[in-house]
Amino acid sequence: MSELKNDRFLKALMRQPVDRTPVWMMRQAGRYLPEYRATRAQAGDFMSLCKNTELACEVTLQPLERYELDAAILFSDILTIPDAMGLGLYFEEGEGPKFRKPVRTEADINQLQVINTASDLSYVTDAVSMIRRELQGRVPLIGFSGSPWTLATYMIEGQSSRDFARAKTMLYTQPELMHQLLDKLALSVIDYLNAQIVAGAQVVQIFDTWGGALSHAAYQEFSLAYMEKIVAGLIKQADGRDVPVILFTKGGGHWLEAMADTGCHGLGLDWTVDIGSAKARVGDRVALQGNMDPAVLRADPATIEREVQSILSSFGGGAGHIFNLGHGITPDIDPEHARAFIEAVHKFSAN
Amino acid sequence: MSELKNDRFLKALMRQPVDRTPVWMMRQAGRYLPEYRATRAQAGDFMSLCKNTELACEVTLQPLERYELDAAILFSDILTIPDAMGLGLYFEEGEGPKFRKPVRTEADINQLQVINTASDLSYVTDAVSMIRRELQGRVPLIGFSGSPWTLATYMIEGQSSRDFARAKTMLYTQPELMHQLLDKLALSVIDYLNAQIVAGAQVVQIFDTWGGALSHAAYQEFSLAYMEKIVAGLIKQADGRDVPVILFTKGGGHWLEAMADTGCHGLGLDWTVDIGSAKARVGDRVALQGNMDPAVLRADPATIEREVQSILSSFGGGAGHIFNLGHGITPDIDPEHARAFIEAVHKFSAN
Repeated sequence: MSELKNDRFLKALMRQPVDRTPVWMMRQAGRYLPEYRATRAQAGDFMSLCKNTELACEVTLQPLERYELDAAILFSDILTIPDAMGLGLYFEEGEGPKFRKPVRTEADINQLQVINTASDLSYVTDAVSMIRRELQGRVPLIGFSGSPWTLATYMIEGQSSRDFARAKTMLYTQPELMHQLLDKLALSVIDYLNAQIVAGAQVVQIFDTWGGALSHAAYQEFSLAYMEKIVAGLIKQADGRDVPVILFTKGGGHWLEAMADTGCHGLGLDWTVDIGSAKARVGDRVALQGNMDPAVLRADPATIEREVQSILSSFGGGAGHIFNLGHGITPDIDPEHARAFIEAVHKFSAN
Repeated sequence: MSELKNDRFLKALMRQPVDRTPVWMMRQAGRYLPEYRATRAQAGDFMSLCKNTELACEVTLQPLERYELDAAILFSDILTIPDAMGLGLYFEEGEGPKFRKPVRTEADINQLQVINTASDLSYVTDAVSMIRRELQGRVPLIGFSGSPWTLATYMIEGQSSRDFARAKTMLYTQPELMHQLLDKLALSVIDYLNAQIVAGAQVVQIFDTWGGALSHAAYQEFSLAYMEKIVAGLIKQADGRDVPVILFTKGGGHWLEAMADTGCHGLGLDWTVDIGSAKARVGDRVALQGNMDPAVLRADPATIEREVQSILSSFGGGAGHIFNLGHGITPDIDPEHARAFIEAVHKFSAN
């Protein structure tokens, strides 16, 4: 393996001093980039792109060719695990992910098998290995997974949902059944993320996109408890370095203290949270990643600069900040606005 | 006017002791009730029902005939103000509200006139007067409005939105223009709510449905500041009683302290907030209203009872709690489950 040339991101995650705040963007390999759209057109549909090792590697590296980013993130989807479980993931243009065989009954859940990444999801670990090799130590590589609760919502609803009617009905009326499902998912995620680490991922992030739809009590029991189990089950070191774990619950700003107690190394913040207050609450225990509203990227570069400065000033300096957006970059963003964002972080955070 | 026979809700809002926790449900006059669906069928579409004084009064009273609730809420829509401004509100089945003439440019905003409730929205004040009379003092009547920011999002997007792309672009690139729009809306809301108070509303609630989509800083500047202006502009007393104001920002749990500083009397909480922690943060300044996840109503009565107990126990007794859902009751709920919820509040909160 090539030696890591830029360890700003890893250091910040371990709350060690860095020369400037590291920056990457959720969904940085995405439709806002014309080169991504070209590769995607070549691959066909979205899942074909995820399953094509060379092309998945290519799109992962595209934003790094264009911008001075401090991390690469595996190009994949959060729903690969339920797809490998046989639910039949597909995408309808403009409608988000769907499953041909959603999970609705006790029998459906009993039938599900904990996945074995080596046999069921080798296209993911192949991509991780190739990306890590192609990166040649430029920046660290982030692996990722959806959280058990987030996977469960898609599996039960069969698609994205406004109010998670089916998933919440199961949670409240058949909590043991929901726990069975979440248990299988947590074991699958542990296997999946460990396989990514073995293949070369140097950091892993768990995306809990829908944890914020839960009540305070239900979040702890049905989402956070399983993320904690995952953190405990992950490989702690690879290549002689710690492998940090980042938890990101969108809409989870109320629960940062509890999230920090899971043993993770970093928390992703959405844009509703004031990062300075978040630091006051948990900053001595974990690093904080975020949190500019991706909508700001629609504004002019001067506005983007101002918002970056405002977040840096709210964090107030010191170790433990990774700059990011509060959610993924959207397809309508001008790539030059993304550049203005990244360069503003460079410019205003330099020590 | 008839003397008020049940003042539990008003007392709790002023943080005075009560014999048991008062309870009402957001959207309690709604599609989950067969009698509502019958009246609605008679009226035709949704806006025709809002504009028909007798029928709007009838559906407002329906949940009170069925359940022992402690408040009535005017049956209307949050988008009556932009409709009165000439944007052409309409509803497509299963799609939510839409505007025929969304507001997109500076010229669009310059053309908008602050509404005059007496001439533009007399159907609302007529309904308030009739409901107040028909209530015969059984329970207090709540009037309401959408918040300026929430109204602005619908006016700019032309419909509900996932990420408020247009509204946020205006906010970040033309903040002065957005402030102009919000100013006109705030003045309109003041006029609208004061007219409701004069017509008989004894409490008013401001629904800030989309404030939670804003960043920490943008919320203060573009949503909360205008709600504060409204609170300051409202009539303080009617019939020799204080007229309390409730602010409800869905997803606004981070900002409770700032919301409590507006001079309002109560804060509506969505279900993601732990009501005990909320009380610790602001409970000596304002009453708290909420906050069971409406999805719990899909579960069996025993589960509903358990969730009610858990929220009561988190609040921990004492003055200043109004029980409610964390958001509106949904059309799929069995009315007997709503009954189980209301009766559980009666049973477990009695002093």
